[in-house]
Amino acid sequence: MKKAAVLMGSDSDFDKIKGCFEKLNAFGVPYEAHVISAHRTPERAAEFAKGAREHGFGVIICAAGMAAHLAGVIAAYTTLPVIGIPVTGTLEGLDAMLSTIMMPPGIPVATVALNGGANAAILACEILSLSDDKLAERLAAERVKMKESVDKKDEALKARLKEI
Amino acid sequence: MKKAAVLMGSDSDFDKIKGCFEKLNAFGVPYEAHVISAHRTPERAAEFAKGAREHGFGVIICAAGMAAHLAGVIAAYTTLPVIGIPVTGTLEGLDAMLSTIMMPPGIPVATVALNGGANAAILACEILSLSDDKLAERLAAERVKMKESVDKKDEALKARLKEI
Amino acid sequence: MKKAAVLMGSDSDFDKIKGCFEKLNAFGVPYEAHVISAHRTPERAAEFAKGAREHGFGVIICAAGMAAHLAGVIAAYTTLPVIGIPVTGTLEGLDAMLSTIMMPPGIPVATVALNGGANAAILACEILSLSDDKLAERLAAERVKMKESVDKKDEALKARLKEI
Amino acid sequence: MKKAAVLMGSDSDFDKIKGCFEKLNAFGVPYEAHVISAHRTPERAAEFAKGAREHGFGVIICAAGMAAHLAGVIAAYTTLPVIGIPVTGTLEGLDAMLSTIMMPPGIPVATVALNGGANAAILACEILSLSDDKLAERLAAERVKMKESVDKKDEALKARLKEI
Amino acid sequence: MKKAAVLMGSDSDFDKIKGCFEKLNAFGVPYEAHVISAHRTPERAAEFAKGAREHGFGVIICAAGMAAHLAGVIAAYTTLPVIGIPVTGTLEGLDAMLSTIMMPPGIPVATVALNGGANAAILACEILSLSDDKLAERLAAERVKMKESVDKKDEALKARLKEI
Amino acid sequence: MKKAAVLMGSDSDFDKIKGCFEKLNAFGVPYEAHVISAHRTPERAAEFAKGAREHGFGVIICAAGMAAHLAGVIAAYTTLPVIGIPVTGTLEGLDAMLSTIMMPPGIPVATVALNGGANAAILACEILSLSDDKLAERLAAERVKMKESVDKKDEALKARLKEI
Amino acid sequence: MKKAAVLMGSDSDFDKIKGCFEKLNAFGVPYEAHVISAHRTPERAAEFAKGAREHGFGVIICAAGMAAHLAGVIAAYTTLPVIGIPVTGTLEGLDAMLSTIMMPPGIPVATVALNGGANAAILACEILSLSDDKLAERLAAERVKMKESVDKKDEALKARLKEI
Amino acid sequence: MKKAAVLMGSDSDFDKIKGCFEKLNAFGVPYEAHVISAHRTPERAAEFAKGAREHGFGVIICAAGMAAHLAGVIAAYTTLPVIGIPVTGTLEGLDAMLSTIMMPPGIPVATVALNGGANAAILACEILSLSDDKLAERLAAERVKMKESVDKKDEALKARLKEI
Repeated sequence: MKKAAVLMGSDSDFDKIKGCFEKLNAFGVPYEAHVISAHRTPERAAEFAKGAREHGFGVIICAAGMAAHLAGVIAAYTTLPVIGIPVTGTLEGLDAMLSTIMMPPGIPVATVALNGGANAAILACEILSLSDDKLAERLAAERVKMKESVDKKDEALKARLKEI
Repeated sequence: MKKAAVLMGSDSDFDKIKGCFEKLNAFGVPYEAHVISAHRTPERAAEFAKGAREHGFGVIICAAGMAAHLAGVIAAYTTLPVIGIPVTGTLEGLDAMLSTIMMPPGIPVATVALNGGANAAILACEILSLSDDKLAERLAAERVKMKESVDKKDEALKARLKEI
Repeated sequence: MKKAAVLMGSDSDFDKIKGCFEKLNAFGVPYEAHVISAHRTPERAAEFAKGAREHGFGVIICAAGMAAHLAGVIAAYTTLPVIGIPVTGTLEGLDAMLSTIMMPPGIPVATVALNGGANAAILACEILSLSDDKLAERLAAERVKMKESVDKKDEALKARLKEI
Repeated sequence: MKKAAVLMGSDSDFDKIKGCFEKLNAFGVPYEAHVISAHRTPERAAEFAKGAREHGFGVIICAAGMAAHLAGVIAAYTTLPVIGIPVTGTLEGLDAMLSTIMMPPGIPVATVALNGGANAAILACEILSLSDDKLAERLAAERVKMKESVDKKDEALKARLKEI
Repeated sequence: MKKAAVLMGSDSDFDKIKGCFEKLNAFGVPYEAHVISAHRTPERAAEFAKGAREHGFGVIICAAGMAAHLAGVIAAYTTLPVIGIPVTGTLEGLDAMLSTIMMPPGIPVATVALNGGANAAILACEILSLSDDKLAERLAAERVKMKESVDKKDEALKARLKEI
Repeated sequence: MKKAAVLMGSDSDFDKIKGCFEKLNAFGVPYEAHVISAHRTPERAAEFAKGAREHGFGVIICAAGMAAHLAGVIAAYTTLPVIGIPVTGTLEGLDAMLSTIMMPPGIPVATVALNGGANAAILACEILSLSDDKLAERLAAERVKMKESVDKKDEALKARLKEI
Repeated sequence: MKKAAVLMGSDSDFDKIKGCFEKLNAFGVPYEAHVISAHRTPERAAEFAKGAREHGFGVIICAAGMAAHLAGVIAAYTTLPVIGIPVTGTLEGLDAMLSTIMMPPGIPVATVALNGGANAAILACEILSLSDDKLAERLAAERVKMKESVDKKDEALKARLKEI
Repeated sequence: MKKAAVLMGSDSDFDKIKGCFEKLNAFGVPYEAHVISAHRTPERAAEFAKGAREHGFGVIICAAGMAAHLAGVIAAYTTLPVIGIPVTGTLEGLDAMLSTIMMPPGIPVATVALNGGANAAILACEILSLSDDKLAERLAAERVKMKESVDKKDEALKARLKEI
C-alpha cells in the first residue's frame, strides 16, 4: 500500500491534529511524519515533495497555522494529492484557512476543517482506498460504528432530559 | 480507469465551474455530470452517493453556493473521496466556503478554492493518478507547460514595462 | 396539541441549547428529542423528517455546529416549519450560522441566534400558539414577567451605582 | 385562514424581496403589506404589531437592511411568529443579517437568508399549514415541482456539456 | 446643566461599561441610569426617549449587546444626540457594533468602541461642554493628565527594558 | 450659533458624503469644509483641531476611507465632539469603520454608518440643538416629514403590489 | 545604488499594482521585474531569492492574490527585506492580505495595503534611502508636493460646495 | 550603525511584543524605546518622528492596538521606513491590523503579523543590514539556527508518535 506523509509546520501544532495520527493508526495506513517548515526549512520541504511519489507516498497531509503556506509549497513540487489542515491560533484560524484553501488555478490543495486532523486522515484513507478494497471495507465499517455511536448518544439523551 | 462525478446544486453554477469540465476533458478522465440538489432532490443525492463506488466512480466533485450542503450530504452516503467547490453569489462566497469545509469529525470534504472548478478537476486527477501512471505523466507534463506559460509571461512583461 | 421535535447533531451541543428544553417544559409543549446527525446518521434524519407531520409534530428544532447541515437536511424532507439553532464552537459560530441560514430558494430554515435554544423554543411556541389560545396566553404572560424582571433590575441598579 | 403581514423598512427593498409576494400569491395566502420603518415610524410599527393577532394575522414578515431593527421591534410587541428577511446593500448584508438574527433571549426572530423573500413566504406558509391541510398539500405539491424542475435541468446539462 | 442618561439593555452589561459611570462622576455631570430593554420593555424605552428633552436630558447613552437595537429604538423617539455603546458577548461584538452603527439615513446613533463606556461618557461631556465652560476646562485638564500618565509610563519603560 | 466643520481626507470622498452638506444647508447650520489629510497634511490637521473651539466651531465631522485616521487625529487635538464618517472603497468599508470607531479610552470618536454623511450632519445638528431651540424645532419638524414620507410610500406600495 | 526587484505571481496583477513601477521610475530607483509564481515556478522563485543579495538587490517587492504565498516563499530564501502587496480578486482581498501578512516568527514580510503598488515602491525607496541621501531628499520633496496637492484640492472644494 | 526606535501606544502592549526587544538585543542593534500615544501624546509623536532621521534612527517600529493609528501618524512625519505591529485585544486584532496596514497612497507602513514583535525586529535588521555586512551575516546565521531547530523538532517528533 502507498504511504501517507504527515507534515507539520511547527511541532506546536501536534496536539491540535493528534486525531490525524490516531486515525491513520486505526485504519492501518503506514505513514511517515515530519516537522517541516515552508519558511524555515523551505529546501527540505521542496526536496521532500519532489521525491514523494517515487518514495512510495500516495498522499501528503500538511498542517500549518497563520499564513499557512506549507500545503501550497508542497503542492508546488508534486502531483500527488495534498491535503491541507489549517490550524487555529490567530484570527480564529481564518488566516490559516484562507492561506491553505485559496490556491490559484493549477495547483490544488484539498483543504479540510480547522484542526481537522481526523478528517484529513480519513480523507487520505478514502483516497488510498480506491486501490485497496480492505481499506474501503474498514472505512465502511467505521461508518457503521459512527451510526451506532450516535444511536447510543440518542438513547442516553433520554436520561439527561429527565434531569431538566 | 475509475470515473469522476461532477454534481452541481444548481445549473446556474455551470459557468462558474466550467474549468472543471475543461480540465477533466483535457486529462482524458471519464466523468458523468448531474444537477442534483441537496435540498430539492435529497433522495436522488443520497441514492447517487450510495451507489457511486459500485458504479465505478473513484471521486465525486460537488459544487454549490450559499448554505452549500451538497458535498456534505454526498459525503454522508459514501466513503469515496468527495471534493467540494464552494460557489460565490452571496457574502463573497464565505457562506458556501464555510458550509463546505467545516465538516465535523468523521465525514471529510476535500474543499478547494471559491469557484475552483479547474483545481477540483486537477485534484480528482491527482487522486486517480495513484493507480494510473499515464495520468500521473499527464499531470507532470501539465506542470511543465504551466512553467513555460509563466516564463512566457515573464518575457512579455518587459514590453509592458517599457510603456510605463 | 402538535408536538415539537428537538434534534441535535451532537450530544456535546446539549448544554449550549439547554434553554430550549427548559422553555418547552415551562410552556407545557410536548416534545421529543433526539441526537441525529446529518452526516453520521443521514438516513435516520431523512426518515424522521419524512414522517414528522404524520407523527403529530408541528415544528422541528435542529441544533448543530460547524458546517451545520442538520436543519437544511431535515427541511429537505418535510414541509413543517424547521427552526435552526447554530451552535458555537469554531469561528465564533459564524460557520454554523451561515450554514444554517443561507438556504437556497424553496427550502427555508427559520434561524435563531447562536446557541439560541430558549428563543427556538419560544418561536416554536409562537408557531403552535396560532391554533392554541392557552399557549398564546402563556406567551403573553411570559412577556409581562419579562417586563417585571427588567423593572426589578432597573430598581436594583440604583444600589450598584452608589458603590461606584 | 389567518393572514400574513409583509412589512418593509423601506420601499427600496421591494425588488429585493419581490419573491415574497409572488410566493404568497402562488400559495393563495391572504396578506397585507406595508412600508413601516422601525426608526422613522416607530409608533406605527408598535401599533401594528400590538394589534396584529387580534386583526387576524398569523405571521409577520419583516424585511430591512443595514442596522435592520424592524423585525426585532415588531417582535417586541407581539407573540406572533415574526420572520426576518435581512436585505443586502451595505457590508454584503452582514449588518442586516446580524441585526436581525442575534435577538436576545425572550424575543425570537425567525431569520431567513439574505434577500430571502421567497423563503420567508414559504416559511410563513409552512407555519400556517399546521391548521390548513390544503395549504400543506400545496406545499407538498410545490416540492414535487421543484424536484421535476431540477431533473429537467439535469437533463439539459447533457447538451451544455457537449459544447465544451 | 443638562443631564445625561445611561440606559442598559441588560444589567449584565454593567461591568463592561462601568467606566461610563466613573467618568461621568469624575467630570461632575449629573446623570440618571436605567435598565431598559428595546425588546422586553419597548414601551418604557419609547416613553423615556419621548420625554427626555423635556425632562432636562441633553444626551442619552445606550449600551447593548447582540442585535443591539436599544440605541436605535431610543433615537427613533428623540432628537437628542444618542450615543451607542456596543457590548461584547457574541461574535466578538461585531453583531452589537453593526446593529448600533449602521443606522439608516435620518436617525443617527453616535457609536463608540466596543465596551467603550469611558469614551461614551467623555463624548457626552464634550457635547455638554459646548454650553458649559467649566466642563470644557475639566476636559482640557483631563487631556493634560493623560499626557502626564503616558510620559510616566514612558519613563517606567526604561526599567522594564533592562530586565530583558 | 457655533459652526460645524466638515473635513475630508480626500476630495474623492466628496460624492459619498454629499448628504452631509445638503443636510447642514437644509438645517441652516453654518459650516466650513476642508480637504485635510491625517497623513499628507498632518500639521494642518493638528493646527485646525487645536484652534477649532476658539474659532467658534462646536462640532467637527471627519470623513475618511481605508485606514481612516483623520477623525482620531483630529480628536487627539481637541475636546470638541468629533464625528467620524467611515467611507467605503476597500474591504466593504470595514477597514475605515474599525479605524474610526475603535478609539482607545480617553479620546472618543462619534462614529456613524458607512458613507453616513446625512446622519453625521443630523447628529451635528442634534448636538448643536442643545443650546438652540430653533434648531431643535427644525429637527422635530424633519421627523414629522420623514413619517409622512414613509406613509406616502406605504400608500404607493398598494399600486406596486397589484402588478405582481 | 542597490536595485529593487518587483515580482508578480501573475501578469493579471499588472494593472492593479502599476503604481509600483511608476513610483520607482519617478524616484529613479533601478529595478528588475518578473512574473514568478510561488506555485507554478517555485524553483525559479527560490533561485531568484537565494541570489538576490549577491546580484545587487536591496529589497524585493512581491505582489500576489488569493492564497498569496509569493512574498513568504521569497522571504524564506533571503534575508533581504521583502515587501508584500496583497492583490484583490476574491474575498475582497482578505485572503491575499492574511496569506501575506500573518508570517510565523522568524521570516517577516513587510505588508502594505491591498493593491498598494505605489506604497510598496515608496517603502522600498525609504529603505534604500538609508544609504542614499539624494533619494532621501527626493522622498522629502515628494511629501511637500503631496501637501501642496491636498491644499489645492482644499481650495477647489469651495467651488464644489457652491453647487450644492 | 543607525538605530532602531520602538514605540508603543500603551505599556500594556509590552508583553505582547516583547520578542521585539529580545531580537534587537540578540542581533546587537542599538535601539531606543518609548511609550508614545498617537491620541494621548500626539505632539510628542509628531516631534519624535520629525527628528528621527537626524537623530540617527534608520527605522521606526510602532506597536498599537484597537484603532491603531500610531504607525500611520509617525509615518506622516518621516520618510524613514516605519514598521507597524498590530496588537490584539479586541475583535481578534482585526481592527488593529486594518488600521495599520490600509494606509492611503503616499504614506506606507510596513505591517507585520499580529503581535509580531520578533518579526518586526528581524525586518528592521534586514533593512539595516543593507549597509551593514556583519548584521547581514548574523541574519544568515540565524536562518541556519532556525533550520537546525526545526530539524531537532523533527527528530523529537518520532518519540511523540510512539506514544499515540
